[in-house]
Amino acid sequence: MKLKVKKINFETGNTKDVILNFQDAAELGQKAGDRIMIKNVESKSISGKYRVAIVQIAYSDSIIAPGEIGLFIDTLKDIENNAIVSVKPAEPPDSFKYIRKKIIGNKLNSEEINNIVSASSSGLLSSIELSSFITSINIHGMDNEEMTALTLAEARSGEIFDFGPDVYDKHSTGGVPGNKVSLIIVPVVATAGLIIPKTSTRAITSPSGTADSMEVLAPVIFDSEEVKKIISEEKACVVWGGALDIAPADNILIEIERPLHMDPVGLMIPSILAKKISMGVKKLVLDIPVGPGTKFPTPNDGKNFAYIFKEIAKNIGVEAECALTLAHQPIGHAVGPALEAKEALTLLMDYSAGPNSLIEKATDLAGILLEMGGKAQKGVGQKLAKEILRSGKAYDTMKKIIEVQGGEPNIKPEEIKLGPHMKEFHANKGGHITGVNNALINQIAKAAGCPYSKSSGVEVIKKQGARIKEGDLVFRIYSETQSKLKRAEKIYNSTGGPIVLGGMMIERI
Amino acid sequence: MKLKVKKINFETGNTKDVILNFQDAAELGQKAGDRIMIKNVESKSISGKYRVAIVQIAYSDSIIAPGEIGLFIDTLKDIENNAIVSVKPAEPPDSFKYIRKKIIGNKLNSEEINNIVSASSSGLLSSIELSSFITSINIHGMDNEEMTALTLAEARSGEIFDFGPDVYDKHSTGGVPGNKVSLIIVPVVATAGLIIPKTSTRAITSPSGTADSMEVLAPVIFDSEEVKKIISEEKACVVWGGALDIAPADNILIEIERPLHMDPVGLMIPSILAKKISMGVKKLVLDIPVGPGTKFPTPNDGKNFAYIFKEIAKNIGVEAECALTLAHQPIGHAVGPALEAKEALTLLMDYSAGPNSLIEKATDLAGILLEMGGKAQKGVGQKLAKEILRSGKAYDTMKKIIEVQGGEPNIKPEEIKLGPHMKEFHANKGGHITGVNNALINQIAKAAGCPYSKSSGVEVIKKQGARIKEGDLVFRIYSETQSKLKRAEKIYNSTGGPIVLGGMMIERI
Repeated sequence: MKLKVKKINFETGNTKDVILNFQDAAELGQKAGDRIMIKNVESKSISGKYRVAIVQIAYSDSIIAPGEIGLFIDTLKDIENNAIVSVKPAEPPDSFKYIRKKIIGNKLNSEEINNIVSASSSGLLSSIELSSFITSINIHGMDNEEMTALTLAEARSGEIFDFGPDVYDKHSTGGVPGNKVSLIIVPVVATAGLIIPKTSTRAITSPSGTADSMEVLAPVIFDSEEVKKIISEEKACVVWGGALDIAPADNILIEIERPLHMDPVGLMIPSILAKKISMGVKKLVLDIPVGPGTKFPTPNDGKNFAYIFKEIAKNIGVEAECALTLAHQPIGHAVGPALEAKEALTLLMDYSAGPNSLIEKATDLAGILLEMGGKAQKGVGQKLAKEILRSGKAYDTMKKIIEVQGGEPNIKPEEIKLGPHMKEFHANKGGHITGVNNALINQIAKAAGCPYSKSSGVEVIKKQGARIKEGDLVFRIYSETQSKLKRAEKIYNSTGGPIVLGGMMIERI
Repeated sequence: MKLKVKKINFETGNTKDVILNFQDAAELGQKAGDRIMIKNVESKSISGKYRVAIVQIAYSDSIIAPGEIGLFIDTLKDIENNAIVSVKPAEPPDSFKYIRKKIIGNKLNSEEINNIVSASSSGLLSSIELSSFITSINIHGMDNEEMTALTLAEARSGEIFDFGPDVYDKHSTGGVPGNKVSLIIVPVVATAGLIIPKTSTRAITSPSGTADSMEVLAPVIFDSEEVKKIISEEKACVVWGGALDIAPADNILIEIERPLHMDPVGLMIPSILAKKISMGVKKLVLDIPVGPGTKFPTPNDGKNFAYIFKEIAKNIGVEAECALTLAHQPIGHAVGPALEAKEALTLLMDYSAGPNSLIEKATDLAGILLEMGGKAQKGVGQKLAKEILRSGKAYDTMKKIIEVQGGEPNIKPEEIKLGPHMKEFHANKGGHITGVNNALINQIAKAAGCPYSKSSGVEVIKKQGARIKEGDLVFRIYSETQSKLKRAEKIYNSTGGPIVLGGMMIERI
């Protein structure tokens, strides 16, 4: 079928979308989401070859009349308005055959995995097909060879940085609130002379990601050249990975995993490691929080994951150490972008300010990196990390990182904007705190506006193990708006709050 | 968040899709595929109540600017352009929890299945979620209780007709070209006095569906009241099921199964039976073509399916008989809407015209229905069916059906428009026909324009078992356009055509 191109001034994000009039679509036997082949009949260049596009259907001739085909501004850019194209139905790509192979439970070889990854990257696979692929991985799993191949294929889908033979990083599998340890670890290990080009994520389902917290102190959005310049100057950064073209194929899968609430190991490990390869990382410490609410309910789950992770990392030439960490309550007291930045900055400036849980976890992980990098003997990495932190040198490094990323290096913790609306909660009886409900903390922080409102968040004043008396301050909520503060308060009051108090009595006989 | 509606003149196929500007989406914490609640703030009607929509994101303000929300023409039709709507994030529906249960391989109870089906019907489940559900059914299967519950839930999603306690039907699992037997069976069993409200499908991947062929003789698109009137007058019809609101939830699943090329038994049986319940059918004969190219490669596959099918049918109060049928070559000679209508009409008018394969298969199946309906003793149903067909009474009934559906009852076979472009193919050597390639027949017929061009199609003049000599006419292609005829011819010539000739020699020593 020959059709005349009508350029449409929209960007759809999918560079394969074209629009057919419903009559032409019927004649071609096409439904929305089907694939067609399209070529410019008058061109001798690339546009004169058949390429694949995905069909949308216009039911009004005023958008696309019979005989026309709509191309969005980001679809097949080399084909111009009024060009005559030839269009025919397309067979599903080979990659879909391989997806079907996974669906029936067979192992994929690396060529098949490459094919699926490159088809996803170029928009050839629909979200329905990708959902089926991810579901089958969720059910059947992926073996080590498959994960290794997927990691490499995802990394190759984007830019791969080269910061030399000795590049370090830290990553967390997530699930614990207030986990601002990267803001301590990066300046500590950079102070010791290790290169650490930290890319981090924004919060998706949590109140704050490291990128959200760092952004309170300095910009985090940089392109590839800017990141290279930052690392050449300061050896370290804390930037948002989403602004870089690293492992874009992984992002395409994540976009489907997220609404499915799926994060199978077979995709999680390649996702983490592909981005590390992309950043040129050679040695990595992986923080694996374990416990309810994390991806690993029991230490054993975490341990099994760690073994597989180390194996795949080794296969791709990355040396990885894993640390199982406690996740039963927040790290430190602060949850929310500004509050977390403030807590980290306070600790960097004054070791004695604590909090202890943040010091311990950050220096534990930083210590492992220092040992891996030969800066400390086995067993004394944490000691060195604490010394660097206590000395104020990590703070000096952080100021340089903030400055090179375009922030105000001399910012003081008290200058970080919070709230402005705030509500304090006091204990209505005395006792021992026997537990802290992380899920409820996240819920309240998000109701207060996190992570989109950076100045919103919560402070968990008293944590597990503390003994409190009636009337003690236990919790604070900050919010940018009165209405969101009310919403967050309502959750606190209706649930009794995230701080669980046990009586003093052990047994009544 | 308050947003202003911008209507977008596209149909996406998903009646819940809305578009947010990326900035508003970020503020709401929404990503593509997330669910939001939306209501018209100025309306007191249904549009003034919160309903669920699924988010797409525009990254260009020229499509949807901040403060706007895009509604496609098939999204929330009652909300008008420029209306002000209130929007908030929504939690995933319960149904998604049940889908996750199926994903991990657990059995669903009927309440959970009802929940999923009603969420699908109302557009609450995204295509990504439905794809995951269908994939997990494809992998884990469904047991008889689950299939029974799904059948009932799908039926309840739409209208359920009641044509009395004694209603018959015939269905085919498909996969054999030229299977126009319904056009014979319906008038035969109706002549004997049985009620048969036959709904049929249009072709999706084949050259012609029964609805496409029937439409050559009479209109097939009727609403519910019209179908009731037709059945009250003539006891029989051959209408397009797609125009009726029968088991719409099944259609939603089919829309996802189709691009996945999945048709698991766990969905196929509910799909067939839900539509039968909807039409008030009590007794059913199921034609199960077996062999390469059908859903059942071996007779054993077909037999196993038949046992399960009969069981589920029994559970829902439908008496079913199954017939495994040969599918190695087309039924009769004609493939394509007009050619099939012509072949069926010719047989109805003149039994001696044959073709034999059409007579045998149609009367076999009709005979089973006549026996089930007590019109014939066990074992002599086919004999009675043949008598009715031979007597011309089935033709009289067909004329009445054509007339009540608004067609020209006195249409003659030679008045049915074919082509007009036609090409004949002759044997280039003599021999025995040892096989007919169904897939190639379908491919050629579709290249010629089927099913959208009704006058296009192919005639398989000589079939398996025939002895031919060089120069004999073996195949004809009809097409509405010269260019499509050329395209179809090209396939014939490049493949050698669908008719496989063996030599006369058995063995050479």
